[in-house]
Amino acid sequence: MTSGSNPTRPSVLGGPAVILVDPQLGENIGAAARAMLNCGLTDLRLVRPRDGWPNERAVASASGATEVLDRARLFERVEDAVADLRFVLATTSRERGQIKRILTPRVAAAEMRLRWDRDEPSGVMFGPERTGLFNDDIALADAVLSVPLNPAFSSLNLAQAVLLIGYEWFQTAAAVPERTMHLGQTRPASKAELHNLFEHLEAELDACGFFSTPDKRPSMVRNIRNLFQRAEMTEQEVRTFHGILAGLTGRRKPPARD
Amino acid sequence: MTSGSNPTRPSVLGGPAVILVDPQLGENIGAAARAMLNCGLTDLRLVRPRDGWPNERAVASASGATEVLDRARLFERVEDAVADLRFVLATTSRERGQIKRILTPRVAAAEMRLRWDRDEPSGVMFGPERTGLFNDDIALADAVLSVPLNPAFSSLNLAQAVLLIGYEWFQTAAAVPERTMHLGQTRPASKAELHNLFEHLEAELDACGFFSTPDKRPSMVRNIRNLFQRAEMTEQEVRTFHGILAGLTGRRKPPARD
Repeated sequence: MTSGSNPTRPSVLGGPAVILVDPQLGENIGAAARAMLNCGLTDLRLVRPRDGWPNERAVASASGATEVLDRARLFERVEDAVADLRFVLATTSRERGQIKRILTPRVAAAEMRLRWDRDEPSGVMFGPERTGLFNDDIALADAVLSVPLNPAFSSLNLAQAVLLIGYEWFQTAAAVPERTMHLGQTRPASKAELHNLFEHLEAELDACGFFSTPDKRPSMVRNIRNLFQRAEMTEQEVRTFHGILAGLTGRRKPPARD
Repeated sequence: MTSGSNPTRPSVLGGPAVILVDPQLGENIGAAARAMLNCGLTDLRLVRPRDGWPNERAVASASGATEVLDRARLFERVEDAVADLRFVLATTSRERGQIKRILTPRVAAAEMRLRWDRDEPSGVMFGPERTGLFNDDIALADAVLSVPLNPAFSSLNLAQAVLLIGYEWFQTAAAVPERTMHLGQTRPASKAELHNLFEHLEAELDACGFFSTPDKRPSMVRNIRNLFQRAEMTEQEVRTFHGILAGLTGRRKPPARD
């Protein structure tokens, strides 16, 4: 599909992707690009920038970080923007009631560094300036990233949020995090593989009438997705689960597995 | 003069002073005040602000952090602005050839916290936007504070520099849980509830012939159980999953359980 199939690490710089979902002002995109480059981050992904792309005001406010803007990639859907990633964080400032791990920038940076060193790309999603990320986008993330700040005055602008997370990333260059998971022969599932599994499961649940109340479907889907996100599934497990679904619904033989 | 002589800690807020020396644009003073309040800092000191004080543009860019601007104190000389402090840091981005300790924001924050807990006030000086601090001002500091960033692109604006240092200060307050998960109305599933779900799932997988090779069954069961264990399921999610199994296998009601 995209670079998920690319086994080589992109470059010396690079680091985790910054995914801006529905960003509004070009100025903020430019300032975010500047903050990224301050921290050695260059993988900028834009989902539906409101004022189009490229954007002159972004260039003006990037203070020379044009290499980040020039390489920015455009996406129509969040799912596509994160498809090649193995670990995705959603920045939120408010409690959203989704059952997910909540990481500080420091812990998140350590975890992304660990994955980076294993050639597993990560990304951090930021929502539109006014509203923040929507619940359905948060449900696509492995965990929530929240910056501990003065609870009485915690609102950050977009570039500052990017800067704090990028800063923690940059500080990990020498740090050695401790959390590991033994993966054996397999690897973490890509987000595209996971989304594919979600769609398979949800299609079967629709088919069997599991969602008895239509207006509850969106929140139930989010809850189920969050459950699987938290499990940090491997590619092998995603295949196994496709097989389980096929077996339980009696549609066909489960796909090959071992 | 200030909290240094106060035996009790002033308040939850307060913290080290931020001393802006010859700040140029009111916008930057306002943005710095906002970044301060984000991090619980309220002691702003201005030395010779170029465009006078008070400053409307500072208010406009403070995004509501007016309590910091209202309390800001004006000074004609750096010496006076730091007179009551016990520990003063000078931010610089360039090597200045002065023989001083160079601290990262993290180390500086830890040191300022230590002193704060002993009621010894600290402060951090920031120079004018274009040039940074002059050597004579740096000579008034106990140590230099330098932010480790991409050496090829390390220039920060004033508010961002304030934010990074304030952020590190705020993180030293500790009691910030490193890893939390919001559970809402539900609670983590008990192991008995989880085992009950395992048995339900495995019984259905046996019934549909999913385990085609009997000698592989034990390891497959272990792998599936591990996947669900890692998800740290809630009691609510366990019930949802019983419902999913009942739905997928075509039973109207999920089997009795509890």
